[in-house]
Amino acid sequence: MSKKELRIGLIGCGFMGRTHSNGYNRVPNFFPDLEYQPVLQAVCSRREEKVKAFAEQWGFASYETDWRKLIARDDIDAVDICTPNHLHAEIAIAAAEAGKMVLTEKPLARNLEESKKMVDAVAKAGVANTVWYNYRRLPAVTLAKKIVASGKLGKIFHYRANFLQDWTINADLPQGGDAAWRMDVDVAGSGVTGDLLAHCIDTAMWINGGISEVSAVTETFVKERVHNDTGKLEPVGIDDACIFHCRFSNGSLGLFESTRYARGHKALYTFEINGEHASIRWDLHDLNRLEYFDNAVDSDVKGWSSIHVTNGDHPYMDKWWVPGLGIGYEHSFVHQAADFLKSLEKGEPCQPDFQNAYETQKVCEAVIESAKSRSWKTTDVTID
Amino acid sequence: MSKKELRIGLIGCGFMGRTHSNGYNRVPNFFPDLEYQPVLQAVCSRREEKVKAFAEQWGFASYETDWRKLIARDDIDAVDICTPNHLHAEIAIAAAEAGKMVLTEKPLARNLEESKKMVDAVAKAGVANTVWYNYRRLPAVTLAKKIVASGKLGKIFHYRANFLQDWTINADLPQGGDAAWRMDVDVAGSGVTGDLLAHCIDTAMWINGGISEVSAVTETFVKERVHNDTGKLEPVGIDDACIFHCRFSNGSLGLFESTRYARGHKALYTFEINGEHASIRWDLHDLNRLEYFDNAVDSDVKGWSSIHVTNGDHPYMDKWWVPGLGIGYEHSFVHQAADFLKSLEKGEPCQPDFQNAYETQKVCEAVIESAKSRSWKTTDVTID
Amino acid sequence: MSKKELRIGLIGCGFMGRTHSNGYNRVPNFFPDLEYQPVLQAVCSRREEKVKAFAEQWGFASYETDWRKLIARDDIDAVDICTPNHLHAEIAIAAAEAGKMVLTEKPLARNLEESKKMVDAVAKAGVANTVWYNYRRLPAVTLAKKIVASGKLGKIFHYRANFLQDWTINADLPQGGDAAWRMDVDVAGSGVTGDLLAHCIDTAMWINGGISEVSAVTETFVKERVHNDTGKLEPVGIDDACIFHCRFSNGSLGLFESTRYARGHKALYTFEINGEHASIRWDLHDLNRLEYFDNAVDSDVKGWSSIHVTNGDHPYMDKWWVPGLGIGYEHSFVHQAADFLKSLEKGEPCQPDFQNAYETQKVCEAVIESAKSRSWKTTDVTID
Amino acid sequence: MSKKELRIGLIGCGFMGRTHSNGYNRVPNFFPDLEYQPVLQAVCSRREEKVKAFAEQWGFASYETDWRKLIARDDIDAVDICTPNHLHAEIAIAAAEAGKMVLTEKPLARNLEESKKMVDAVAKAGVANTVWYNYRRLPAVTLAKKIVASGKLGKIFHYRANFLQDWTINADLPQGGDAAWRMDVDVAGSGVTGDLLAHCIDTAMWINGGISEVSAVTETFVKERVHNDTGKLEPVGIDDACIFHCRFSNGSLGLFESTRYARGHKALYTFEINGEHASIRWDLHDLNRLEYFDNAVDSDVKGWSSIHVTNGDHPYMDKWWVPGLGIGYEHSFVHQAADFLKSLEKGEPCQPDFQNAYETQKVCEAVIESAKSRSWKTTDVTID
Repeated sequence: MSKKELRIGLIGCGFMGRTHSNGYNRVPNFFPDLEYQPVLQAVCSRREEKVKAFAEQWGFASYETDWRKLIARDDIDAVDICTPNHLHAEIAIAAAEAGKMVLTEKPLARNLEESKKMVDAVAKAGVANTVWYNYRRLPAVTLAKKIVASGKLGKIFHYRANFLQDWTINADLPQGGDAAWRMDVDVAGSGVTGDLLAHCIDTAMWINGGISEVSAVTETFVKERVHNDTGKLEPVGIDDACIFHCRFSNGSLGLFESTRYARGHKALYTFEINGEHASIRWDLHDLNRLEYFDNAVDSDVKGWSSIHVTNGDHPYMDKWWVPGLGIGYEHSFVHQAADFLKSLEKGEPCQPDFQNAYETQKVCEAVIESAKSRSWKTTDVTID
Repeated sequence: MSKKELRIGLIGCGFMGRTHSNGYNRVPNFFPDLEYQPVLQAVCSRREEKVKAFAEQWGFASYETDWRKLIARDDIDAVDICTPNHLHAEIAIAAAEAGKMVLTEKPLARNLEESKKMVDAVAKAGVANTVWYNYRRLPAVTLAKKIVASGKLGKIFHYRANFLQDWTINADLPQGGDAAWRMDVDVAGSGVTGDLLAHCIDTAMWINGGISEVSAVTETFVKERVHNDTGKLEPVGIDDACIFHCRFSNGSLGLFESTRYARGHKALYTFEINGEHASIRWDLHDLNRLEYFDNAVDSDVKGWSSIHVTNGDHPYMDKWWVPGLGIGYEHSFVHQAADFLKSLEKGEPCQPDFQNAYETQKVCEAVIESAKSRSWKTTDVTID
Repeated sequence: MSKKELRIGLIGCGFMGRTHSNGYNRVPNFFPDLEYQPVLQAVCSRREEKVKAFAEQWGFASYETDWRKLIARDDIDAVDICTPNHLHAEIAIAAAEAGKMVLTEKPLARNLEESKKMVDAVAKAGVANTVWYNYRRLPAVTLAKKIVASGKLGKIFHYRANFLQDWTINADLPQGGDAAWRMDVDVAGSGVTGDLLAHCIDTAMWINGGISEVSAVTETFVKERVHNDTGKLEPVGIDDACIFHCRFSNGSLGLFESTRYARGHKALYTFEINGEHASIRWDLHDLNRLEYFDNAVDSDVKGWSSIHVTNGDHPYMDKWWVPGLGIGYEHSFVHQAADFLKSLEKGEPCQPDFQNAYETQKVCEAVIESAKSRSWKTTDVTID
Repeated sequence: MSKKELRIGLIGCGFMGRTHSNGYNRVPNFFPDLEYQPVLQAVCSRREEKVKAFAEQWGFASYETDWRKLIARDDIDAVDICTPNHLHAEIAIAAAEAGKMVLTEKPLARNLEESKKMVDAVAKAGVANTVWYNYRRLPAVTLAKKIVASGKLGKIFHYRANFLQDWTINADLPQGGDAAWRMDVDVAGSGVTGDLLAHCIDTAMWINGGISEVSAVTETFVKERVHNDTGKLEPVGIDDACIFHCRFSNGSLGLFESTRYARGHKALYTFEINGEHASIRWDLHDLNRLEYFDNAVDSDVKGWSSIHVTNGDHPYMDKWWVPGLGIGYEHSFVHQAADFLKSLEKGEPCQPDFQNAYETQKVCEAVIESAKSRSWKTTDVTID
């Protein structure tokens, strides 16, 4: 077979290192017709014992313990960044300068400044780039986008999303280090805003267009936690919870909430869109379903319809099983890997690229600024 | 106002006495345009203290302690029987012979023989008659009937219903007496078959036509219980659980189950109908909803639709509040009372009348016989 | 029977006139043990034909067409105000000055100034008073209050509520007049804030304590509508939608949203409360259910529990039917009527009284002010 | 690495060939600690073009077009049979005689006679064997088994299951050939009984013990369909629908239904178990959830709990992602592949083995016989 190989160099072997590796590994089985096929050429992480075991488990041909060496290798076509957020910018810029394609986990970076440098770097280098806002690629979410784009909803009045978790309620949880870097503001950049709301914002602007201004509130319920690096109680700098309302450029009102203190919710990412003629809602805990209300249905039998998004004519589902048999969270990464490869084949950007993710970053930054200043902030987002 | 009065004599002041009384009391407020309006003329129960208090609470003008006296009164137009099952036949026949209209709680009687005599009695007397299979009158159930009758489902393949409860699991519950007559086979006639499945069968044959043959199994999980009359352990004669499959005369397969041993279910009456083009399901625990699957909807947005049956164009709902504001169980009795009054106005039978309820009784009898003989039984039902 | 009579004079015979009348009418049947029983002495509305028919339908002993005459009558103990909002203050103050007990539909008034005068008037007159925030009296909502008050949730982190409708999306709907006074800002005072969010705020502060500061946004999607009084296109002054986040005095974050432009939702009032140890949520479209997550349950079987609030030991449910058989929207008014009568018996205020409803009004006012000024507003609420 | 290799020879590359191949492929990534690891040594199918492409897509080292050649190869340790049902017996027996381990798709065979020969063959050869009743390995189903085995339900009263589909309603669908062998009775052995109810029976007897007697009804709604082999209308020999009730040896009542004519249901496999102290239910369309009712919970907050079975302490879930992130249908095959490998490591049978699947076959045979003879049939099942 005359397949072209895309040799991947993966940096970071934590949770996201696993989801990306699995994403690449499934492509040949489920997307065999792509011109490009991924090759797990090398994986990199600081601790040799860990990275060696990871390479073996996931089938990487080699490993490195210094990301600069990985970037310098001639046998790497694309660098995929799965490190904590504080390293995204430095690695991505170096990779671009080395002429590598760059894929990075979301959020793009800790803040707007870092993000801008990354956008500039890939633009200057002219390399393919993408950010793993994976939820776009769940079939039900892609179907939501398709329905809205078709015009079935008409004018949009409301967009609301939340991402609720409960795993940091325990005040004895430490912050920082490998295990808890998401709770260390210096490493993560922010709390739920960058970790969870960034997903909601990415989906929202993809489906409903740009967010023009925001008004936010944040809260840090546990003010001090032991830091894994120092062993001492240190102030907590992240936002444990964040709520914001906003206006989209299409005139609709937006409402977003995220927290890690909503007892009973593990990863409850939901969104709902209300239009003139129809509405849509979705819930990550039932990820194979989309609920749809079509006002054009006869009045006596009109209601919210629960679509089990597992038919062959649903997005991506021709690749998997038969109607009624659901897929899982991890499949969003398989789809994104496949879409990235397809974009190379077509010579088109793979959305969200760095530029698009930079727009999401603008909203995150405005949200944090709004909460600090207790005032509305405009976002300067350029998406219509 | 030139309203005609229908003077009610109610016999029995237990749970059903309350639901019927409330049914009559609500009619003037919510169905003011009926030509006939009910008047609570008298209530009857053996114990004077109890019946006096009941009369006062519900607004009856008088009371009796002997049902024969009530029937003999000239100021009673209609006798409504809310006694335990073993008295239905005797009272109904006497009332008919006295020229009274007769309404009776379901089931019609303890068995087919009693039922036949009742049918003959009202036919001979030529008096209006009806049986309170109240669930027909819940708006969502009436809507289901309307949808099926419209032909939207096409050919019907399957009808399934169950009625699950859990209140008799405790082996220390006694049987018999006022409090537990439903568990005494001599008084009730049968267990879940007459108490619960009779409802399911009534709804089923109303919507899907006659049941022609059945194959059943019954079980009595607790074999002996203390009897309230004797104070001694006595064999339990009722069916604690009953399952049957059957064929309808339209060729569809039926499946029915009822039990009082389904831990976690209080009164879970559900049914589902699968047709060539559409399906319907309903659940008493969410009585304001009907779920509907329409195969004609575009493939990508097709799903089960949850209809909140609270719009002004839904059955009966123009009488109540505004869309979204649900009604409750008791409203089914208000609707039946109103429909009975309306039937007098129109000079038509109020379904289910005794003849129709007799058909339901045939199925119940065949079910019990089938379980005893471990064989299929034909029902001789004359409904198409 | 030595029952004391409470002679009601009801003003207004629209939708709320019906719900209140029904509330009073059900009390004798379902709350027979109360010392006070309501008597429908008189009803008042401007148009004689309408009020006469209403009196007949609901059983009022007499009617008036001038509310001042009704207040002046000696045979009226309590005045119940079901008029559009702009008349609440004038009538309530006059009634209090005439020494009558005063009950009024929510919201207390159009604005804070009117509300204050009403509070002062009933205080000065020393008359019993209450506001019909009826949702407190739905059994599932009362149960939520009871669970939170028991301390089962521990420290509260989040409270969120929304009230979503879709009935004003059509731009051809007129505003004003009897039929559409809720859309005329001069009559209603505000749009969804006073009509719908007021309910959410009342429930929230009852369960979770005072709201100390708010940040809001409002939107009027249809800017001009024909006015029923003038027949001309007039600017629309009400808020079609309102979102606000807030802080409660207990440190929890609040999030509230209401709109009449959420296609597919008829009257979707929901709330959710997240505490350290447990969470609760409720939905008016399934009003007999409460969902509850208890973190103390064993990890492998822990989940959101769906409580069908229909047992005899659930709030108010000993008055109705048997487990599994739900009640409806209207029952909240029956319960409130009964609770008002009970409060007279006990000589205690019936919450929410005018003072308490005034606190809700403070939040509504702050919300509207915040939206106008695009800034946070403190509420001066005195509830802890 | 000192891993032992299990060299797989897979026969059949249809739908099940894909699920099994994927199952093996995921093992090294998600179950790296197993002593045995699978190697995709060879795949076999009659048409060379198809099997060659399949081998390439899924990573098989070689392919065959004659299954006898595959069995004869020295480099094959285990034969995995994914052919249509009519070949199961012949291949399995030959493989056992060749000393290979044997894995086969469910049902074990077309009938009891073939099944018995297979059981005898693997017993005589002393080779490891298992049948892919994959649903046992979904985490929520495994959790159900664990909960029942713990005794939390107490005495079991009821077990009910159904498996509803709608894909054969169209009378124009042909039968037979590669595409529709499930509708050809000579190839499949039976219709929904062997295809769908066999799954339900396997799960039921695993969780609730042996089924001792059954009473069934079957129906073939479309009596004739064009046969793909002959091009002519031929009688349809399979059961389109099958319902049976039964008794388990523990005294509980069972109820099972399957059909391919339930409009709106794609693959709705559900089961519910009612015990003295608790109940459980599950639904394949929401495969990550288990619903659980625990009667020991305080009365006022007692309800059905919805467990999102995605925590690290839920069965198999320590291998996948983080709480809240669901898995899909295909994971059941990964788990079964891993469990088979684990069983080799431990030297124990991997359930369900042929002997256990033979017990399921007894029930299927009794069901078909019962339907034919319109009478109860005993099963001779030896499971307690």
